Amino acid sequence: MDWDVVSRLGEMTGTVAFAVTAVLAVAPQRVSLFTACVMGTITAVGGGTIRDVITDQPVFWSLDPTYIWVALAASIAAFWAHRFFARRSVFQTMLYLDALGMALFAVQSAGTVWRLDFGLPVAPVILGIVTAIGGGLIRDVLAGRQTLLMNEEIYAVPVLLGTSLLVVLMSIFPDNWEINSAIGFAIIFGMRAAAIRWNWRWPDWLNSKPDQK
Amino acid sequence: MDWDVVSRLGEMTGTVAFAVTAVLAVAPQRVSLFTACVMGTITAVGGGTIRDVITDQPVFWSLDPTYIWVALAASIAAFWAHRFFARRSVFQTMLYLDALGMALFAVQSAGTVWRLDFGLPVAPVILGIVTAIGGGLIRDVLAGRQTLLMNEEIYAVPVLLGTSLLVVLMSIFPDNWEINSAIGFAIIFGMRAAAIRWNWRWPDWLNSKPDQK
Amino acid sequence: MDWDVVSRLGEMTGTVAFAVTAVLAVAPQRVSLFTACVMGTITAVGGGTIRDVITDQPVFWSLDPTYIWVALAASIAAFWAHRFFARRSVFQTMLYLDALGMALFAVQSAGTVWRLDFGLPVAPVILGIVTAIGGGLIRDVLAGRQTLLMNEEIYAVPVLLGTSLLVVLMSIFPDNWEINSAIGFAIIFGMRAAAIRWNWRWPDWLNSKPDQK
Repeated sequence: MDWDVVSRLGEMTGTVAFAVTAVLAVAPQRVSLFTACVMGTITAVGGGTIRDVITDQPVFWSLDPTYIWVALAASIAAFWAHRFFARRSVFQTMLYLDALGMALFAVQSAGTVWRLDFGLPVAPVILGIVTAIGGGLIRDVLAGRQTLLMNEEIYAVPVLLGTSLLVVLMSIFPDNWEINSAIGFAIIFGMRAAAIRWNWRWPDWLNSKPDQK
Repeated sequence: MDWDVVSRLGEMTGTVAFAVTAVLAVAPQRVSLFTACVMGTITAVGGGTIRDVITDQPVFWSLDPTYIWVALAASIAAFWAHRFFARRSVFQTMLYLDALGMALFAVQSAGTVWRLDFGLPVAPVILGIVTAIGGGLIRDVLAGRQTLLMNEEIYAVPVLLGTSLLVVLMSIFPDNWEINSAIGFAIIFGMRAAAIRWNWRWPDWLNSKPDQK
Repeated sequence: MDWDVVSRLGEMTGTVAFAVTAVLAVAPQRVSLFTACVMGTITAVGGGTIRDVITDQPVFWSLDPTYIWVALAASIAAFWAHRFFARRSVFQTMLYLDALGMALFAVQSAGTVWRLDFGLPVAPVILGIVTAIGGGLIRDVLAGRQTLLMNEEIYAVPVLLGTSLLVVLMSIFPDNWEINSAIGFAIIFGMRAAAIRWNWRWPDWLNSKPDQK
């Protein structure tokens, strides 16, 4: 397998994981199959859509609708087979695949924005974060759930650190995209996987105190 | 009257219905005239704006501000004459006009996206749905209401079915836009009107079970 | 100091005020430093980003990332020094600086849209309002707070009046940008400052009656 195949496989795995975790997140609220598909698809492609609109590029799923088909199929599967996907072992696997997708999409986005020479040095980091969590934020808002920004889970910070390091590496070694992006990916996936595995939370001194009003 | 005049009349009727139903939806929450106008206008033009941004076309109301004026006038009328518009017979009429606007905007959007050759075959369907319900979703989110995706009413599914059929018909009979779009429009409007008239809900086997967590 | 320096200074002051008031608004909800930075930055640059996307211009912070750095620095400062910023006198000062930023961004936006000849005459007013309140709306939605459109404070109406007058003045005196924009700015800032100072609320006849359902 060459790099393109691996990357493509990773993208589709990430798309599936984003859609499945989204459907499992909203299913307890009594939603229709239609709403499940909307939520799954928005979560899978929403963040990348915002990135493309902000960078004025053609929206990625308009160039290749495979992302939509995969997200739809995964949403339908998660809706009907929710008992299977909600099993602890399967759900845990899905969380790690979600982390893998997040790391991959963030690094790809940061790389695309870097090559566009768009808003350096901050835009690759900002749009990496947007790609990783934008779809999930839209899902939470449309479902009336507390957004992932407001809970204590460590979700987006690995993306911030990994893409920031990637930008630093690209500035120093501009010709080493493969190695730089592999390091960025490893940091994001590693930190996020550790946060899932050991249930990392924010240390208290990095949280605001509710009585501080 | 030729086709352009009928189409134009339908668009303005739909714009009025979108704005009026939006103002009636948020008025029970004690809003100012200003907020009513914002909600009415966003509901009327929000979905089409997202479609134009995603397809990278000039935003439709920047080419013809009539849509804004009509939405504003309808919002102000609905705010002051809410007793009239909230009357059962008038409100029912508004719901059917809302269905008419939704069907018309969805079919027009799908056609525009088709002619742009943008993201076929999925984008005409996705952007038809976005145009039909995007403005209403933004309104619900800004007003802190449960979004229309989370209730059991059948609202957007007719758009999914009608625009999907339209895409199939255009693939088979690419030169028959008038007939194809009339069929798509009839399906959307007919199904949505039936859902209003007979208070259609999702059959239970198409809903997630809240205890499935 | 020439005009550009004053304008630049005002922009950065407004960016700081938007970010600081945003962090103070969400801090009582127990947020992490990361979330505080996201909220502060989105509030500071969100409205202008929507404006640039709708008018199909390069997003302003991609041309000059200073806005992002300033918003981040202000967010971090507000997070750590919340006791200082939450002091009554400092908070009041921040509210007035917020009003100053809002007036400046709204007038600049309206002027930019006017010079683009985009959707006249309504777009400069609409996009002036979007620039002034769009970031704050996204913040409120992501934080699960009631949006500023749903409370009784007079926040966006000065922008509506000031940018509308600016459009009228530009139509009559197209060569007088400096004077016209100064008048628009004075109206917005003056009205908003008065609303803060005397706690202006909507007169009751301009509110919908919650029993009107």
